[in-house]
Amino acid sequence: MKNDRKSELSAKQISKMLGAVLVGSESISVKGIANLVDASEYDISFLGNDKYRKSVLSSKSAIVLVPHDFDSPPPENRAWIKCDNPSEAFVDITQHFVSYQYIPAIGIHSSTSIHPSAELAGNLHIGAGVVIEEGVIIAGHSIVEAGSYIGPNSRIGKNCRIHPNVTVRERAIIGDGVTIHSGTVIGSDGFGYITGPDGHKKIPQSGIVQIDDDVEIGANVTVDRARFDKTWIKRGTKIDNLVQIGHNVILGENTIIVSQSGVSGSVDIGKNVIIAGQSGVVGHLKIGDGAILMAKSVWSRDAEPGVAYCGYPSVPRQTFWKQAAAVQKLPELLKRVKSLEKEIESLKAGNEVSPS
Amino acid sequence: MKNDRKSELSAKQISKMLGAVLVGSESISVKGIANLVDASEYDISFLGNDKYRKSVLSSKSAIVLVPHDFDSPPPENRAWIKCDNPSEAFVDITQHFVSYQYIPAIGIHSSTSIHPSAELAGNLHIGAGVVIEEGVIIAGHSIVEAGSYIGPNSRIGKNCRIHPNVTVRERAIIGDGVTIHSGTVIGSDGFGYITGPDGHKKIPQSGIVQIDDDVEIGANVTVDRARFDKTWIKRGTKIDNLVQIGHNVILGENTIIVSQSGVSGSVDIGKNVIIAGQSGVVGHLKIGDGAILMAKSVWSRDAEPGVAYCGYPSVPRQTFWKQAAAVQKLPELLKRVKSLEKEIESLKAGNEVSPS
Amino acid sequence: MKNDRKSELSAKQISKMLGAVLVGSESISVKGIANLVDASEYDISFLGNDKYRKSVLSSKSAIVLVPHDFDSPPPENRAWIKCDNPSEAFVDITQHFVSYQYIPAIGIHSSTSIHPSAELAGNLHIGAGVVIEEGVIIAGHSIVEAGSYIGPNSRIGKNCRIHPNVTVRERAIIGDGVTIHSGTVIGSDGFGYITGPDGHKKIPQSGIVQIDDDVEIGANVTVDRARFDKTWIKRGTKIDNLVQIGHNVILGENTIIVSQSGVSGSVDIGKNVIIAGQSGVVGHLKIGDGAILMAKSVWSRDAEPGVAYCGYPSVPRQTFWKQAAAVQKLPELLKRVKSLEKEIESLKAGNEVSPS
Repeated sequence: MKNDRKSELSAKQISKMLGAVLVGSESISVKGIANLVDASEYDISFLGNDKYRKSVLSSKSAIVLVPHDFDSPPPENRAWIKCDNPSEAFVDITQHFVSYQYIPAIGIHSSTSIHPSAELAGNLHIGAGVVIEEGVIIAGHSIVEAGSYIGPNSRIGKNCRIHPNVTVRERAIIGDGVTIHSGTVIGSDGFGYITGPDGHKKIPQSGIVQIDDDVEIGANVTVDRARFDKTWIKRGTKIDNLVQIGHNVILGENTIIVSQSGVSGSVDIGKNVIIAGQSGVVGHLKIGDGAILMAKSVWSRDAEPGVAYCGYPSVPRQTFWKQAAAVQKLPELLKRVKSLEKEIESLKAGNEVSPS
Repeated sequence: MKNDRKSELSAKQISKMLGAVLVGSESISVKGIANLVDASEYDISFLGNDKYRKSVLSSKSAIVLVPHDFDSPPPENRAWIKCDNPSEAFVDITQHFVSYQYIPAIGIHSSTSIHPSAELAGNLHIGAGVVIEEGVIIAGHSIVEAGSYIGPNSRIGKNCRIHPNVTVRERAIIGDGVTIHSGTVIGSDGFGYITGPDGHKKIPQSGIVQIDDDVEIGANVTVDRARFDKTWIKRGTKIDNLVQIGHNVILGENTIIVSQSGVSGSVDIGKNVIIAGQSGVVGHLKIGDGAILMAKSVWSRDAEPGVAYCGYPSVPRQTFWKQAAAVQKLPELLKRVKSLEKEIESLKAGNEVSPS
Repeated sequence: MKNDRKSELSAKQISKMLGAVLVGSESISVKGIANLVDASEYDISFLGNDKYRKSVLSSKSAIVLVPHDFDSPPPENRAWIKCDNPSEAFVDITQHFVSYQYIPAIGIHSSTSIHPSAELAGNLHIGAGVVIEEGVIIAGHSIVEAGSYIGPNSRIGKNCRIHPNVTVRERAIIGDGVTIHSGTVIGSDGFGYITGPDGHKKIPQSGIVQIDDDVEIGANVTVDRARFDKTWIKRGTKIDNLVQIGHNVILGENTIIVSQSGVSGSVDIGKNVIIAGQSGVVGHLKIGDGAILMAKSVWSRDAEPGVAYCGYPSVPRQTFWKQAAAVQKLPELLKRVKSLEKEIESLKAGNEVSPS
């Protein structure tokens, strides 16, 4: 475990690592990575797409990886590093910053409770107090941290990281390279009842949760198991803290769901969708690939691919802003209409008397 | 524990179990239960109320339990099962599907920490790492799963299920047949401070939480203890994931609170109320029996029994939709008013010159 | 541990404790404390600021601590206690009610997993199943309850209380007198990715969380670690349940964040700010001291010190209520404009025929 919060790399060090050409300050150094827009003066960033060329100069990023044909010189105290492929070079560099993070050591703590039928591969970390139930299978190089619970017959792929105090209930199927943060619950019962004269009778939630490779799920998230069949989070999707995923939801590949949003039962979401913070999706909808839901909005109808929606009920973003602007003019509009009504009255009165 | 995800029942099997008359496909089979509206082609459903007669044909449900006087024949690949009392028959059938779920075995794990003063009845499951503090009482046939914490002097009734990693703090009173899902916290301190010149001084939260029979509480929910007296969740109420229940709240019988909603302190909610997802209730309100709050709305005034509210500030549902429709026309309305103003100007100009 | 839910103090007992003058009922008694507005007939309250003089009589509070010059006599069944300094006296009295709460006994449970390098001061409570990793430092008189996890190299000050099943990840710095409720996660990774042609690549979150003295954090809250540098919650700030604090957020002193609100990454919030329930703050904003965000609102622009905002997009509170009132009149306004349009048409028709 490393714990050096002051670790940083200079432009000179980075250009050496990459065998690339340095332009500008040699001594300027960075502590982290970011995209051009979010970067601070302590970050390295990269130009991976021609349409962001202008952002290189306006970015605060101290160091930017650029292609060889990027000609503008860096301002004072900034540096460009010219590479054959800035995107690939950036991926290499991120590895150095990753190394400052805590990685638990390989080993199985003596205080764990592991059912004898569980099949555990080698090179695992199983932290203190972890409970692994009957029939669980965990592949190699995965980490299950202290206090986490893996329910009966669940399977966890290789290179996963389950942070402390996670609950994975029975029969979950978790792929390779999945990260789940603390306090998150995978496989809680879906919320389904049939209401009769004696109250609400529970509908059994007998399905499972399947989480595909390279998914990351934040802290204190809840992902409900399916009523039958599966709740399914597909490859590369990223979910922020305190999000609710209802039963039988399908989340397509590389979708993003920001903090405190909720997806109701049986919603079918495409790939590359973005749901911004504190938003909601009504049950049984179909959301097209690449659709976007802005913050604190509610999708209450099926959403077209690639369209950005806003508000509740949600409308296309431009429409929302037009309406929001119009609402701001509304108190004044009421006055204008009142004044029109008076004018009409006086015109009518005038008309009545004027003809002679 | 059963783990057969393929288990299903055919129409023929079900009619035999019930000793009832089968009409339609004998071989069609189902994997789960649902109401007529939500049912898929893998579900069995029932006609429990005459007003849903039309829904039987439009439902996707493969098999429907119907009364003897239901005459329309089933379409291809569907079946009706004619019973004396479809609602009761349906309850019988649900038991078969429940059996596919994981039920932990009776026994007390060796890694638990149980205070010697705790009174534990027979036929319990107490999972690995469970902590049971001084003076706790747990009645028979209850399940407390791995990693859960039961605080001092709390009482848990019979036939309860506390899923893994639940926290029940001191002095909670939990009835019979209560289910609490993982990550949920019962009895955290209410949020109350007195603000003075030196900052916020905490108001002691010395009350308790009482949860009556047959309540179900989802995952990562928070139910705050009362300032004094009790926060009280009455019989049969169902709470979804990530819901917040403030201190001294009273939730009436058979109320439903959907995911990510919040109820502020000292709210008094009637029975059979429905609060849809991501909604909020302002503190100290009184909500009548059977009132409904639509998704992402805020009750900021007392709510009448049986009325459905929507929006923020909340208004009766029909009013909300009228207003929402009107807002959508607002940008166009601004143009119409502008054009009226011009017309008036030109009429006035005309009037000024026309009289002769 | 005390468990006497009936404990109460009479006006006579309190006046004796304080050596102060009693006016009104000697026998009336109270079970808790509250401010004048929220108090019930079982509470004691105080007049700490002259501008609340009128509230003393309208309050339900059974007993009120008042200054010597407060002349109005108490109504029947209420009592005033006249003190030199009611605010200070009130602080003394609150101690008596605090004593009814459960305080875990000093001691380290045998089922804990504590790394030998951890430095634990005296007079600690470390509950069953607690995991304390390498390099942790905990100062005296702190309480870490059952099932909690303290990650590598984290530091916890004196007189802290970490309730059961809390997760504090690596390198957190927690001051003195901090309270963290169950299920809360401190130091989960911030939500940051760079999106390329192969999906979302994680930006390492190598910073920490720092929590200063006298902060209280509710249940199932998530506080993300910084991308680099720190997420920082300053002295005296109080956070309710299910709140999300993004990476690199700064919360000023004595700020209040109510349940289910979320603060996006890199927001810089001043001191004495209030964020009401279910609200959100968009990333990278600057919020001035004493600003207020009303319930279910979104700050999407920097906020001025001392101003109260409401709605989404948020506007000053008065503007919001004017707009909300106008929206309620909107369906009727549409009718009025339609009728104006008809009037104009008929006036124009009249004008065309009338001149002769």
